[in-house]
Amino acid sequence: MDMLSYQNFGFEITCRDPKSRARLGRLKTPHGVIETPNYIFCGTKASIKNLSPAQMREAQTDIILSNTYHLMLQPGADLIAQMGGLHKFMNWDGPMLTDSGGFQVFSLGEGTMANEIKGSRKQENAGKQNLMQITEEGCVFRSYVDGRKIKLTPEGAMEIQRKLGADLLMQFDECTPYHVDKDYTARSMEMSMRWGDRCLAEFARHDDGAQAVYGIVQGGVYGDLRRISAEYTKDRPFFGTAIGGCLGGSDEEMRGVVESAAPYIHPERPVHFLGIGQLKDVFTFVRLGIDTFDCVIPTRLARHGAAFMKGRRGETINLKNACYRDDPSPLDERVPVAASREYSKAYIHHLLKANELLATQILAQHNVATINLLMREVRAAVVDGTLDQLEKEWLGY
Amino acid sequence: MDMLSYQNFGFEITCRDPKSRARLGRLKTPHGVIETPNYIFCGTKASIKNLSPAQMREAQTDIILSNTYHLMLQPGADLIAQMGGLHKFMNWDGPMLTDSGGFQVFSLGEGTMANEIKGSRKQENAGKQNLMQITEEGCVFRSYVDGRKIKLTPEGAMEIQRKLGADLLMQFDECTPYHVDKDYTARSMEMSMRWGDRCLAEFARHDDGAQAVYGIVQGGVYGDLRRISAEYTKDRPFFGTAIGGCLGGSDEEMRGVVESAAPYIHPERPVHFLGIGQLKDVFTFVRLGIDTFDCVIPTRLARHGAAFMKGRRGETINLKNACYRDDPSPLDERVPVAASREYSKAYIHHLLKANELLATQILAQHNVATINLLMREVRAAVVDGTLDQLEKEWLGY
Repeated sequence: MDMLSYQNFGFEITCRDPKSRARLGRLKTPHGVIETPNYIFCGTKASIKNLSPAQMREAQTDIILSNTYHLMLQPGADLIAQMGGLHKFMNWDGPMLTDSGGFQVFSLGEGTMANEIKGSRKQENAGKQNLMQITEEGCVFRSYVDGRKIKLTPEGAMEIQRKLGADLLMQFDECTPYHVDKDYTARSMEMSMRWGDRCLAEFARHDDGAQAVYGIVQGGVYGDLRRISAEYTKDRPFFGTAIGGCLGGSDEEMRGVVESAAPYIHPERPVHFLGIGQLKDVFTFVRLGIDTFDCVIPTRLARHGAAFMKGRRGETINLKNACYRDDPSPLDERVPVAASREYSKAYIHHLLKANELLATQILAQHNVATINLLMREVRAAVVDGTLDQLEKEWLGY
Repeated sequence: MDMLSYQNFGFEITCRDPKSRARLGRLKTPHGVIETPNYIFCGTKASIKNLSPAQMREAQTDIILSNTYHLMLQPGADLIAQMGGLHKFMNWDGPMLTDSGGFQVFSLGEGTMANEIKGSRKQENAGKQNLMQITEEGCVFRSYVDGRKIKLTPEGAMEIQRKLGADLLMQFDECTPYHVDKDYTARSMEMSMRWGDRCLAEFARHDDGAQAVYGIVQGGVYGDLRRISAEYTKDRPFFGTAIGGCLGGSDEEMRGVVESAAPYIHPERPVHFLGIGQLKDVFTFVRLGIDTFDCVIPTRLARHGAAFMKGRRGETINLKNACYRDDPSPLDERVPVAASREYSKAYIHHLLKANELLATQILAQHNVATINLLMREVRAAVVDGTLDQLEKEWLGY
């Protein structure tokens, strides 16, 4: 595994905030360089919900992700490989990340975190998917698409991600839910570490320089376990570090988890925070050294009629609200995209009332563009040392 | 009514096909000039389904329409007027047409033609809407949105269209269904003629040069009635002529209806064919002197997974078909828009299987762009005298 040079990848830290762990970076991939902190938008099933790649670019998006779990079930990794890989398949030529499938296999098995990732359309099928078995070798579950029994192992997860062809990959891990005890969490974490080694070995066997793999810090809400897991990832030839698994039930617990892991994470590698990305989270966790975020909320909020709004307490407004019925103002003139500037709130309100799909398209592009504006301003604030002031501006305090 | 000069409007016939009534025209409106024959895309509720104005422009769209019936019920003509009119409300700065609301009031009352125009989302509400009364004054119906009792008269239909602010308006008429007899059709047509006069009088009272009104040829499937109705519109100061109402149950009957009216329609005014627009119809009716078409099918087909395809018998392919599962080819390289060129059929098939909204966005833009390509080629063929050859190319014969 010493051969893992990641020669087509790089992560250069160009500026550090003297008051926190916040930092500016340049993350290099074969499909381009992105500046960090940055936000990775979820194209769960090889599509950002109701936004074309051109619309994502208009919104100044740098990087997106797709979910291995969904794609392995439909249309299947072999088909995507046959079609030239995920970049070509979904017509996105920028940097891209895939997860390992672990989160969905385990969380959908529990049925608790399912809604976050599966999207609302398929919730009626949630019961069809079942986690059937977890062993040292891997896990067996039933497909939510057709009920097939499917085995997923660390080696299999790497093989599927290799076929998908994203730039940044994730190791396969077990994602423990909130309600399990420390003993289960510890044993699970240790297995995820062994799975991490198997992922690295499998990755190294096929490494052609086109991809780079992240290790995942597990350990639930237990600070001492998070430290052990962080040190494990630091000592292995991962390209980057991701923070995953159960983060607790409150903002404070989530912050505590990251604080307990942060000092032990490899300081020169990019750090990704899996599945987290409200506006307030960006401020909290950039200060704790997070370089990239991902979350489904920009597009999910759009489907519910909500728009991110800079300076609004609670982060969003809901355009279904009757107060917007005759509001001629656009969503936000400060956001440089047609969706934010060229339609009145009254029009979007009307589209939502009329069940017109254009509403979700407009709101999704606005939300993505707003997040990208946020990330540009966060990067500038790290340089200027003005994160505290920017946080107040954005969160309306 | 002699004062109706339509000074900001014009229709210039620039070329005639020696072998048919087909002709090339330039239709001038305050929001721009369009070349005819052309196709008017349906933005029923002030939105082309899942396509932004920018995407419509990319697809080289010249002109769109909205439906008075839907907009008067939601969000209401007063609100749209307050927001600066329909152009500003929906962010479309090109030529625009509104119908009078008559077609929907009468056809939804019958429950037969409803699906065409209302769109699939609202079909569960179809029973809530009822045509309650037709008198010389106008009609009374129940709103499908909230059950309100609403009266619509010729004067009211013109007032609503004036508030909406489109360039091209339609007179209010009664739209008779297929199953009524000749006697009913004749009496209805005569009332529509009286309503036409009231529309013109109401229009003239408020004419500020920003709008122009079309008369509508009624008369069902009866050639002698169509002639009377056509002559009526010719003798009145309408800007254009539309062919509406029941066109029969077959292509032959529809063709017969237009053939019986065509010689009696004002030869120098633009002729619009209401609600008709399959590819084959464009060829048939351009030859009979139709200048503009409108139909919901480009976007409705998209929502059903179907794409127009030049040269395909039956006009469309359905991307849900399993044969496209691993088809790496784009929809159609000949159509100059990203939707047609930059995604594989395999990808669109996957999006449809996965219920991803992006599928309908891609297919809708492809269908609109394909129709616009058709219309450009039809115009060129009128000049070149090659309509017959072009028809074979498009319809795959």
